[in-house]
Amino acid sequence: MCQMLAMNCNTPTDIVFSFEGFRRRAGMTDSHSDGFGIAFFEGKGVRVFRDDQPGAVSPIADCVKQYHIKSLNVIAHIRKATQGVVNIENTHPFIREIWGENWVFAHNGNLNALPDLSSCYCTPIGDTDSEAAFCYIAAKLKERFCRKPTENEIFDTIKELAAELAQHGTFNFILSNGQWMIAHCSTNLHYLTRQAPFGVAQRIDDDGIIDFSNYAKDTDKVTIITTFPLTKDEIWAKMEHGGMVMFKDGVKIREAIGTPKEAVDDGTLGCTKIAA
Amino acid sequence: MCQMLAMNCNTPTDIVFSFEGFRRRAGMTDSHSDGFGIAFFEGKGVRVFRDDQPGAVSPIADCVKQYHIKSLNVIAHIRKATQGVVNIENTHPFIREIWGENWVFAHNGNLNALPDLSSCYCTPIGDTDSEAAFCYIAAKLKERFCRKPTENEIFDTIKELAAELAQHGTFNFILSNGQWMIAHCSTNLHYLTRQAPFGVAQRIDDDGIIDFSNYAKDTDKVTIITTFPLTKDEIWAKMEHGGMVMFKDGVKIREAIGTPKEAVDDGTLGCTKIAA
Repeated sequence: MCQMLAMNCNTPTDIVFSFEGFRRRAGMTDSHSDGFGIAFFEGKGVRVFRDDQPGAVSPIADCVKQYHIKSLNVIAHIRKATQGVVNIENTHPFIREIWGENWVFAHNGNLNALPDLSSCYCTPIGDTDSEAAFCYIAAKLKERFCRKPTENEIFDTIKELAAELAQHGTFNFILSNGQWMIAHCSTNLHYLTRQAPFGVAQRIDDDGIIDFSNYAKDTDKVTIITTFPLTKDEIWAKMEHGGMVMFKDGVKIREAIGTPKEAVDDGTLGCTKIAA
Repeated sequence: MCQMLAMNCNTPTDIVFSFEGFRRRAGMTDSHSDGFGIAFFEGKGVRVFRDDQPGAVSPIADCVKQYHIKSLNVIAHIRKATQGVVNIENTHPFIREIWGENWVFAHNGNLNALPDLSSCYCTPIGDTDSEAAFCYIAAKLKERFCRKPTENEIFDTIKELAAELAQHGTFNFILSNGQWMIAHCSTNLHYLTRQAPFGVAQRIDDDGIIDFSNYAKDTDKVTIITTFPLTKDEIWAKMEHGGMVMFKDGVKIREAIGTPKEAVDDGTLGCTKIAA
């Protein structure tokens, strides 16, 4: 379907190590070749890079690799189209302004027969189920809260909306406002938090190695969220069906436990199955 | 204050020739060094490149130069801050979804004591007068038309809102939905339409020369809009105070005539003063 990669941390961090493995799945080690996008928060602003070419070969992705943008929140997506043509408006992540913030959203899955989306508040620009689902969430949130609510209210409302939308199919998504990051799992989503003592990691897709102790300070906390793990020798937590987590400053601050499903061979090397 | 550059055409066109002169004004030939942004429409999608570094030296601007994106509508902006700190969220162009379209907006000028913007529909993310004005326009449009109106209704409504906002200061702006492009002038805005027979042009900022006849077909129409002209040997139309024009497929399709003001030496070489 697609794959997602995200990072939430407490110090501006460069995602290039993870991104270089991830982008190979967009045409080299896997076939998510129908466009890609990556969004970096810097303060309240967002810089987003998109292409309808495969991420593995896109010169825009090369630009991202060279520029080493440091960010507290990053969401990236490589697309394998299920609904909607291959073009720029159908690349994730999608972005909308909500309560004076940039909200950035990416989805992996397929949703059918979505609820009515003719709200004049938030209308999809492209023709994906993903953007439609995001617009639905945005519209419902703004309907319920004219002004920005608390993080707990946001989490609880999104959990409720996610459960509703997940009845229409597979709804793995990642969403961030530049401070918190929410991950919701239907089928496949994994995360890990890197903190002191930092060690070595090796990418699955091309064997690239990094020693994080050369880059990180003792106080750094960096959570990486991916559809499927990116490294060989780290323990990734596998989220369960319907589970949702909220991260902030690199650590988990809220969670809603999902429902364990029968184990499926989905290529999750070195994963600990932990209820989200 | 700032400078703007835009292009509207009937065939996907590369803006690099104009952009290379323009970006030099962001730190080399002029001092609009408080960040830049450039947005390219591709179908309904938008690719936007931003930096808070000066456009003259930004590696993001280098990436734009190398990638030669072809587009029917492009809006670029180099900032000299009057209100709002220098950061990513305060770079133009600003983007909002309106009636299921991307709307892209850039402003040159300074507006004070703006109307109340606490509408929960569209709230500024940064702290510029420019984004606030755009949000005001977006909110008023959505309030008046729940669904997308005709282009004439859009033009007339925006003309009315622009006149209202221009009472608060200087309101030169460029706005596009990826099909039409609107330019409104308070003080400085110029345009020209290139069409067959195509000839040679030389940039003011670095003497770069291009022979458009090597690139353009006889049916091509390309309108360039800039704060101040970019080339030495072409005739640029200078818009007048309060004037507004709408371009589509590279040509002017609507205009509202402005009010001539006493001539001011504003560096407009080779310009014909034509009521917009």
